[in-house]
Amino acid sequence: MPGYTMNKQDFHNRLRRIEGQVRGLQRMIEEDQYCIDVLTQVASVTRALQGVAMGLLDEHVRHCVADAVKQGKREGDVKITEAIKAVERLVKT
Amino acid sequence: MPGYTMNKQDFHNRLRRIEGQVRGLQRMIEEDQYCIDVLTQVASVTRALQGVAMGLLDEHVRHCVADAVKQGKREGDVKITEAIKAVERLVKT
Amino acid sequence: MPGYTMNKQDFHNRLRRIEGQVRGLQRMIEEDQYCIDVLTQVASVTRALQGVAMGLLDEHVRHCVADAVKQGKREGDVKITEAIKAVERLVKT
Amino acid sequence: MPGYTMNKQDFHNRLRRIEGQVRGLQRMIEEDQYCIDVLTQVASVTRALQGVAMGLLDEHVRHCVADAVKQGKREGDVKITEAIKAVERLVKT
Repeated sequence: MPGYTMNKQDFHNRLRRIEGQVRGLQRMIEEDQYCIDVLTQVASVTRALQGVAMGLLDEHVRHCVADAVKQGKREGDVKITEAIKAVERLVKT
Repeated sequence: MPGYTMNKQDFHNRLRRIEGQVRGLQRMIEEDQYCIDVLTQVASVTRALQGVAMGLLDEHVRHCVADAVKQGKREGDVKITEAIKAVERLVKT
Repeated sequence: MPGYTMNKQDFHNRLRRIEGQVRGLQRMIEEDQYCIDVLTQVASVTRALQGVAMGLLDEHVRHCVADAVKQGKREGDVKITEAIKAVERLVKT
Repeated sequence: MPGYTMNKQDFHNRLRRIEGQVRGLQRMIEEDQYCIDVLTQVASVTRALQGVAMGLLDEHVRHCVADAVKQGKREGDVKITEAIKAVERLVKT
């Protein structure tokens, strides 16, 4: 089971809201809304996605990484390396 | 007309693809996929949104800001201040 | 003359302060300070650098890009393309 | 001892190089170099700082957080919450 299992419904709801926000962006474009207003809304959707990413990372470290650390040094090191690489991808986007 | 008018269809298509990606994220959560794989996909959606933001900014500066600059110093300065603030919001997300 | 000419002294002072902050980071490492405190300080230096970048971008658009736009469509387009690419590099870091 | 103890010299060297890069930025401003070239160099210093942050985070999780996890659930949870907050600050800058 992935680390986010206990909060599946919460993550699902957040992603549904983000889907609605992306449809809202399509409407803004169709209605010729002002570029800067569309940009502000794009920044807001990006922040919501980063919130989801932070939540998933939190659950992953708290469950999958912590379990691997308790299993042994090698198991822990593999999971930590993988998690740090995921953080690097988040920081660069 | 906003700066992106000539490319409305392109922006619309990109946002439709992003909407599909967000639905794909919901499926990944429902199917209990591995946290790190979900995170990689969230980073990919975030990058796609940033691509839309950069495209909108480009059109805005090339049309709305450039037109204001040609109208006069005061008109140009107002639009430039507004555009720089939008860039700051993008850099901070 | 580059766009930041009128504010050279201000940018110089901000970069001197950032240089001092980077030396402060070296001291924190030498004194074995707590990882999270060093990270918080690294985030603060990064924000200061982004502030310098936003200031330089503002002056550049307000002077160099605006002047090019007033010279003609081709001159303006070249400068706008260059500025948008610089923003993309900032957003990605 | 903080997590980065084994690599203190490496982090020190990287921060010395970053200090040199910040002094290089001051020279670029003094010599009236082109705004876009200064911006490119600011983006490069920012990336170098983010590299230091990622290195510190890696050592912190591999040592301080892993040790706390092995001590007990409460100790681990406290350190994980603190580390995730540090990542949030890095992602937002």
